[in-house]
Amino acid sequence: MRNFNFAATTKIFFGKNKVNELANEIQKHGKRVLLAYGGGNIKKSGLYDKVISELTGAGIAYVELEGIQPNPRLKSVKEGVRLCRENQLDFILGVGGGSVIDCAKAIAAGVSYDGDPWDFVIRQAKVEKPLPVGSILTLSATGSEMNGNAVISNEEIKEKRAMGDERLRPVFSILDPTYTFTVNKWQTAAGTVDIMSHIFEQYFTHDTGTFVQDAIAEGILQTCIKYGPIAVEQPDDYEARANLMWASSLALNGLTGTGKLYGDWATHGIEHELSAFYDLTHGAGLAILFPVWMEYVLDSKTAPKLAQYARNIWHVETADDMEAAEQGIKATRKFFTRLEMPSSLAEVNITTDHFDQMAKNACVFGPIGMFRRLDGEDIKNILLKAL
Amino acid sequence: MRNFNFAATTKIFFGKNKVNELANEIQKHGKRVLLAYGGGNIKKSGLYDKVISELTGAGIAYVELEGIQPNPRLKSVKEGVRLCRENQLDFILGVGGGSVIDCAKAIAAGVSYDGDPWDFVIRQAKVEKPLPVGSILTLSATGSEMNGNAVISNEEIKEKRAMGDERLRPVFSILDPTYTFTVNKWQTAAGTVDIMSHIFEQYFTHDTGTFVQDAIAEGILQTCIKYGPIAVEQPDDYEARANLMWASSLALNGLTGTGKLYGDWATHGIEHELSAFYDLTHGAGLAILFPVWMEYVLDSKTAPKLAQYARNIWHVETADDMEAAEQGIKATRKFFTRLEMPSSLAEVNITTDHFDQMAKNACVFGPIGMFRRLDGEDIKNILLKAL
Repeated sequence: MRNFNFAATTKIFFGKNKVNELANEIQKHGKRVLLAYGGGNIKKSGLYDKVISELTGAGIAYVELEGIQPNPRLKSVKEGVRLCRENQLDFILGVGGGSVIDCAKAIAAGVSYDGDPWDFVIRQAKVEKPLPVGSILTLSATGSEMNGNAVISNEEIKEKRAMGDERLRPVFSILDPTYTFTVNKWQTAAGTVDIMSHIFEQYFTHDTGTFVQDAIAEGILQTCIKYGPIAVEQPDDYEARANLMWASSLALNGLTGTGKLYGDWATHGIEHELSAFYDLTHGAGLAILFPVWMEYVLDSKTAPKLAQYARNIWHVETADDMEAAEQGIKATRKFFTRLEMPSSLAEVNITTDHFDQMAKNACVFGPIGMFRRLDGEDIKNILLKAL
Repeated sequence: MRNFNFAATTKIFFGKNKVNELANEIQKHGKRVLLAYGGGNIKKSGLYDKVISELTGAGIAYVELEGIQPNPRLKSVKEGVRLCRENQLDFILGVGGGSVIDCAKAIAAGVSYDGDPWDFVIRQAKVEKPLPVGSILTLSATGSEMNGNAVISNEEIKEKRAMGDERLRPVFSILDPTYTFTVNKWQTAAGTVDIMSHIFEQYFTHDTGTFVQDAIAEGILQTCIKYGPIAVEQPDDYEARANLMWASSLALNGLTGTGKLYGDWATHGIEHELSAFYDLTHGAGLAILFPVWMEYVLDSKTAPKLAQYARNIWHVETADDMEAAEQGIKATRKFFTRLEMPSSLAEVNITTDHFDQMAKNACVFGPIGMFRRLDGEDIKNILLKAL
């Protein structure tokens, strides 16, 4: 087990009607709020009205930033920064899924920075004195509600990249599973795949002696496998939605990555290229790519960990590691298909057109992945196998 | 899954040489430190010298409170409070196991309170404006390093009781597994039982829909079962010590209790009576009591959860819940025996002498336990079965 620092400082308010805590929590950190959200879903569900009533009831001033899209755009970040400066806002509230919360974080970082917020993701600027962020989560997927990461898309240059800073962890996040009842089958399935992928990225490493982390990771994977299909079939099953919601936060709040060097993150890197070029749902891209990545990296060095996964998650009993790993990969693909996620790029109308550019973009800072290092050639091969 | 609030705010510095962070972290919160510790162990291991060198190197003033005992005494708390007031100390650093850290917390709460600190544990006073606490952990067991609880013994009236407040969570805790290499077999085994017991207390409930919490809890139990015996046999096995140390923090930082009403905690209540009357090692008392408690509460209502434990932890395959539960209890007792923990009160020279008083004391606030409510009669029966 490697040395690590860990603090999951985000205060979680979990359960029915926890949005009642909103005004009280905001007032601990700010007085003038940027209310950031996406489309009309929160208006349909009544959450928007509830939030406005909480804010106005407590006399908290707010300015709205509407229309944040999935794979949130740099344009929205810049618009948010402008609104904060013009209106002297001192708190960012993101109400929505990971995209909205990611955008809220980028805005929070951007307000005190004179340059282009894109500088954060291309490592040309460091986050300094971000505004505090709070969130109300409406989609169980990214884990953004409990970590300091944000993924932003630059629509002009077709790039999608991550930034991160401990101080961008939301100071609070409100997780009411009932607000995820209206999430449709596709997004529910994609969210489940996203949660599992966050575990995969941290689980498939060559670190040794991380038994407790792996055991917790396996528990979160089992949770997704149990409740993903239930939530897809019965969207208002509270226990399924609650377990997926808490799993989404725990999968990427740093916990399962403690004691490990970094995680792999190659598959996320490749998927970000797909989403940047085609605006594909992140979880759907991951469902296509992960089994292919597992097959591609499987060799004598990676087989033991992939076999551990196969045995502990899919109850594969084969003694041979290579064979067990192969069975585990098959089971993974089968599960994603059961969730009605695509299993090939062809299914989502992606062709080889931009593969060269994607492979190049994914490696712009050098080879990616720690479980096995992948260069541009590898990435193109993976994309071709995913066709 | 029930509604909950959760924030594990303690900043964890985990691994070799992390004590190098000490001065830097203290200076974020205070300038004048009460250095609280137990006996000579930290002097033998060199940790004491390292701490002093960190403090003096950074020009941090400190006053020492030495001699905090296992099952920490109210006397030490009062002495610490006096030292803090007389020397205008503004930060409490506990260096040791759970007893030292518990004592540090009680002192932190007591400084701003005019009355007797015992009032906190008998619910006659609330914690107000506690001083910040930091810890350096040298024994993997209680989880005190990452929560707001403290257990204090009142030697005059032979009582041992718990107090708790979110603001008593250490602001930081330094966890260097190498400082647990010198923990002897008995304390290593007792610590392992203590970690497992914290999981038991939160796992054995009638709450439904807490799959992800239970899966994580099972992962922590498996960690103890794998590494407890290794640490007992090979005290300098870093991976064993590291996994137990991180497990101890995660077992009682609130994580596995999220979404549940309260946990059971009857066995801890009964054990506190044993420790109060006989100064028994807490984990040894729990090793005796837990299998007996499991047998005592086993009925048609509790069998399904005890069977789940048996199947997921001890790989019991029996279909019948009652039978599976019984096998799981047997396996638990066998494991504790393998750790060379006692399995009866007779083994630790405890007789029936104080059973009536213990049963009465344990129920002073009413019946205890949530998995099954236990009154004084039940507690006496459990003690008799544990003889």
